[in-house]
Amino acid sequence: MDPRVEEHAKIIVEWSTEIKPGDMVTIAASPASHDLAVAVSKEVARAGGIPMVLMSSEEIARAFFDGASEETLKIFPKHEKSLTESTDVFIFIRSPVNIKALANVEPNKMLTVGKVRKEINDIRLSKRWCLTVHPCATLAQQANMSLDEYQDFVYNATLIDWKEESRMMYLMKEHLERHNDIRFVGPETDLYASTKGRIWIASDGKHNLPSGEVFTAPVEDTVEGKIYFDIPFLFQGKVIEGVRLTFEKGEVVDYSAEKSQDVLKKILEIDEGSRRLGEMAIGTNRGIKQYTLNMLFDEKIGDTIHCALGNAYKDNNGTNTSAVHVDMIKTMIDGEIIAGDEVIYSKGKYFYEM
Amino acid sequence: MDPRVEEHAKIIVEWSTEIKPGDMVTIAASPASHDLAVAVSKEVARAGGIPMVLMSSEEIARAFFDGASEETLKIFPKHEKSLTESTDVFIFIRSPVNIKALANVEPNKMLTVGKVRKEINDIRLSKRWCLTVHPCATLAQQANMSLDEYQDFVYNATLIDWKEESRMMYLMKEHLERHNDIRFVGPETDLYASTKGRIWIASDGKHNLPSGEVFTAPVEDTVEGKIYFDIPFLFQGKVIEGVRLTFEKGEVVDYSAEKSQDVLKKILEIDEGSRRLGEMAIGTNRGIKQYTLNMLFDEKIGDTIHCALGNAYKDNNGTNTSAVHVDMIKTMIDGEIIAGDEVIYSKGKYFYEM
Repeated sequence: MDPRVEEHAKIIVEWSTEIKPGDMVTIAASPASHDLAVAVSKEVARAGGIPMVLMSSEEIARAFFDGASEETLKIFPKHEKSLTESTDVFIFIRSPVNIKALANVEPNKMLTVGKVRKEINDIRLSKRWCLTVHPCATLAQQANMSLDEYQDFVYNATLIDWKEESRMMYLMKEHLERHNDIRFVGPETDLYASTKGRIWIASDGKHNLPSGEVFTAPVEDTVEGKIYFDIPFLFQGKVIEGVRLTFEKGEVVDYSAEKSQDVLKKILEIDEGSRRLGEMAIGTNRGIKQYTLNMLFDEKIGDTIHCALGNAYKDNNGTNTSAVHVDMIKTMIDGEIIAGDEVIYSKGKYFYEM
Repeated sequence: MDPRVEEHAKIIVEWSTEIKPGDMVTIAASPASHDLAVAVSKEVARAGGIPMVLMSSEEIARAFFDGASEETLKIFPKHEKSLTESTDVFIFIRSPVNIKALANVEPNKMLTVGKVRKEINDIRLSKRWCLTVHPCATLAQQANMSLDEYQDFVYNATLIDWKEESRMMYLMKEHLERHNDIRFVGPETDLYASTKGRIWIASDGKHNLPSGEVFTAPVEDTVEGKIYFDIPFLFQGKVIEGVRLTFEKGEVVDYSAEKSQDVLKKILEIDEGSRRLGEMAIGTNRGIKQYTLNMLFDEKIGDTIHCALGNAYKDNNGTNTSAVHVDMIKTMIDGEIIAGDEVIYSKGKYFYEM
């Protein structure tokens, strides 16, 4: 087995989920991530946990939608709830066999099943959990790379010294929380927001692996200024590029996009919350050197910031609500991040590197 | 998808497990049987059941043995028990990724885990369940065939009119139970046993799919005569061929084998029960035209009988106990099966074909 798969498994078990003796562990893998499921099972056992593996695939999910009547869609999966309740740790390995398998399912059906399973998802999120990626042809293709290139890409982002990364991210959180505001400055960009009473969270590879961001929810009506997002991103299968936004009293008052401006317009019109920011964040993972249109990676790219239109996280003490949460990323290599009177980042250097 | 996979799924759901609305269904599949897992999930949903898929693979099982300490091996898998208890129907799809993956695990470790999981297995067997096979390269290789040939082999055995097969098997059971004994006669063969108080079971594709046998447990000390098994079989990875046995008062008093006689000797010396018959059976599946050293198929070949040295099934009212149950098969195309004064089979014809 590729020794990187084994190293990945070790990080999941030892760092992200901290498996201890007696833990009941449920791993969700696809046929494309059998290797990682094997490696994780071994590491879980080594740590004294008991692994059990579910086969999750978009094609299986699709088959259920195709077969089930409206009645059947509403039946509560009791066996899944029992398993969820008696599990201590969930490890979700994302490694799709076909990312388009659910594309033509009626949205209403998805909504029905989402509602039926909400209780189970809530139980799941109340446990220890980790979401990670296993490089497979499907994801490589989405990222415009060969499998070999994509493996290098994923492992460069994932197999890093998380303890040290975490130390730096928590230091950044501590510094950011000394102040009551945040400012992103750079080419075509000067965006300000109050962060008073808000919490900065260091995402250090515990729930998302890889990770590498320190994020908060700005005080909703204090966002002022303009920003230019130079990294493309996906919304409902469409690529949006070169977004420029202007804010007044927290609301977008002017906007443009170099590509798919109509989609951007649609996002801004979804609801009141989608015209305000739910998140402002600093990407710190220097193992990720390029965007791949996969937000799990893109928003963590080192030397970037990102902002999300829409829903805010309660863990940040955010209050903005929306049906969407759309992340948009900006390279900061020529810019500055300033909190209160402190320079947090300037032209390629975080404050602890200056 | 190969329409035969869909037909197979239909038989599993409609005939073998009779899924009904509200059934909680757990499917165990390997990466090599993703296709059948998809097809079964769709049919389960169509019948109103809720499917959930486990990933079962020998490599994952092996990883647990490799990682776990003696302590960890003894930990009870609570999450697996919860899932098992709340499941109504189990569908096990056998489609190994590597049949040798567990070959070098210490037998003691297997024993420990077997004991720990016995409670779960007992719960499982108390539910509705079905064990089937999905043709994959691993099994094709074991059967000495190309994948294409092996697919034909499996589907010829499986995609048959089970309702009609069942009717014939139950008719045979009824006729066999009118009498108190059974006799197999043929080249180098004349074996007699009392079946008084014993039950004949018609295996008609409910638990095993494919199936096709009517079997009982003979009265242990009444087996008399000699028999020649012309079809090779496996025991612990060794092929045994051309076995001749002579019985007196139920016990083997003389034996030989054309190949691996030493292994046969070992079997007979395992315990007292391994020198007596635990099963006598009639194979009825004419869709299976050749042996493949896979007992799930071989013992069901049409126009054959088989006998098993060792443990008897309680469902037959059998009382012989042993650590092993070793099936051995004989072609009957030149022979006769007689129960009391009734000819059940003679030279290519079952009684209902005469």
